[in-house]
Amino acid sequence: MTRFSIRRQVEFNHCDPAGLVFYPRYYEMISALVERFFAEGLGHDWCEMGDAGLCTPMGKIETRFTAPSRLGDWLTLSLAVSRLGRASVGFDLMCETAGGPRFTGSATSICADMKAGRAQPWPGPIRAAFTPWLPIPGDASSPAAAPDMQKAAFR
Amino acid sequence: MTRFSIRRQVEFNHCDPAGLVFYPRYYEMISALVERFFAEGLGHDWCEMGDAGLCTPMGKIETRFTAPSRLGDWLTLSLAVSRLGRASVGFDLMCETAGGPRFTGSATSICADMKAGRAQPWPGPIRAAFTPWLPIPGDASSPAAAPDMQKAAFR
Amino acid sequence: MTRFSIRRQVEFNHCDPAGLVFYPRYYEMISALVERFFAEGLGHDWCEMGDAGLCTPMGKIETRFTAPSRLGDWLTLSLAVSRLGRASVGFDLMCETAGGPRFTGSATSICADMKAGRAQPWPGPIRAAFTPWLPIPGDASSPAAAPDMQKAAFR
Amino acid sequence: MTRFSIRRQVEFNHCDPAGLVFYPRYYEMISALVERFFAEGLGHDWCEMGDAGLCTPMGKIETRFTAPSRLGDWLTLSLAVSRLGRASVGFDLMCETAGGPRFTGSATSICADMKAGRAQPWPGPIRAAFTPWLPIPGDASSPAAAPDMQKAAFR
Repeated sequence: MTRFSIRRQVEFNHCDPAGLVFYPRYYEMISALVERFFAEGLGHDWCEMGDAGLCTPMGKIETRFTAPSRLGDWLTLSLAVSRLGRASVGFDLMCETAGGPRFTGSATSICADMKAGRAQPWPGPIRAAFTPWLPIPGDASSPAAAPDMQKAAFR
Repeated sequence: MTRFSIRRQVEFNHCDPAGLVFYPRYYEMISALVERFFAEGLGHDWCEMGDAGLCTPMGKIETRFTAPSRLGDWLTLSLAVSRLGRASVGFDLMCETAGGPRFTGSATSICADMKAGRAQPWPGPIRAAFTPWLPIPGDASSPAAAPDMQKAAFR
Repeated sequence: MTRFSIRRQVEFNHCDPAGLVFYPRYYEMISALVERFFAEGLGHDWCEMGDAGLCTPMGKIETRFTAPSRLGDWLTLSLAVSRLGRASVGFDLMCETAGGPRFTGSATSICADMKAGRAQPWPGPIRAAFTPWLPIPGDASSPAAAPDMQKAAFR
Repeated sequence: MTRFSIRRQVEFNHCDPAGLVFYPRYYEMISALVERFFAEGLGHDWCEMGDAGLCTPMGKIETRFTAPSRLGDWLTLSLAVSRLGRASVGFDLMCETAGGPRFTGSATSICADMKAGRAQPWPGPIRAAFTPWLPIPGDASSPAAAPDMQKAAFR
């Protein structure tokens, strides 16, 4: 399973009065991760998609926080494509530091017509660009190949 | 099942270039909902808890977005206590408008010692304050009493 | 001088690791104050203006923070129109609590054509709606009438 | 005048429904700029200062926005020290892109005792670390040496 990742350092503006990353800030980072994946991983950025009247709203997302992050920590946020649907994509999410994992998660983004507000199939060139990122059948490290293990992680 | 709710109007600062609420902003609202619940629903606000060295970090949260929200929409965000653990609490989450639901979700917050960074049992007075909010066994509208229905909602 | 105000309670999500409001969050509140002023004070909300291809970007803003705000504080944010230009409006800004002032400021918003990205004169109905909010010449409490006092406040 | 800079790409989460950077997000970037300056420019990061009971709240800030920023733009945010006081520091702020400037500004941060909530003189080692960043008297490009020019920029 090929992962796409970005690195971010925890800033003062991410931290709450307890001195820890305020969890809503993680979703801004997850959004940036998915945004960079479309731009750099797929080569179709949200500017181009927006000009074509498309957006990729979040359909559902689940996140399990395993340890707090502190000011100055370097976070590696990564995703793998766990499933490509006709008009959706599933992501396996991870956030790690040198000191261990911070959260894991899974998400489903929708391919939508911005004006109509309705799901619509991925355009051909974007669907094709997903190819190198698709989970490999039978690969134990691939979330699509190991649905039970993944479910277990969120129980 | 007794629900605790707050109302928020969608502001410009919540919206993305597609003109819809950017989903990370929903988590700031969920945080505010839980914060007001502790302050007004339980009578133990986060200032008081912080002074006692306690905080309530998010353990896990899952959210399913069913329709987009737009500038000016009035949102009713509500929670119900689905489960009270020794050092945790489960919440059933909902966000609705006059025009229909926007998201549903469930979350688990931890009662933690801020300095030690470890879970710790709810102090007696806070545990007692949860009593009127606990799910009623056998109540079909109570998420704890209807685990299968709730799971179904997130499938 | 007639002031328009909103009230906001300081939430966990506004606070930094020092336990004080993180100043960038004040600008989200100032944006909400201006947004509510257009909607309720003038009767022309940003949805309506956006549909007409107009937006009101911030041209310049200066803010002087006089005391920190803490979790739970109730803030009254208010504005007065200090000057109405052909394609701009000046605001006098204030943020107060029962315990005293938190910040003062002044700002200039531009009336702009969203597509062209250029300033454009206020449409007639919006200009007319400003009338009851305009500073009264000779009123010492009016910032437009007392430029020296206002400057002094920012020295 | 020596400038310290960071680079940031405009992300979806920075943009408003007009598709432009929502100006409160710039203050998060300014905060990050000042934070990196303390950590890398001075070698005294906010973790270390926080452990010593110090923080550097914003005293006043003025910003003039000259052109809008769009999704994907690369921003160079920079600061120069315009003035070092006993318990404060003045910054000259700038934000530029390949396509031209986006905003200029000036700010005064306070050195404060976090518990007492009072200004306190810079500790010796931090004051010494400012030395290479101080404005050079007589340097026309130095804001401290050209107060009139700087004032003009904000008129």
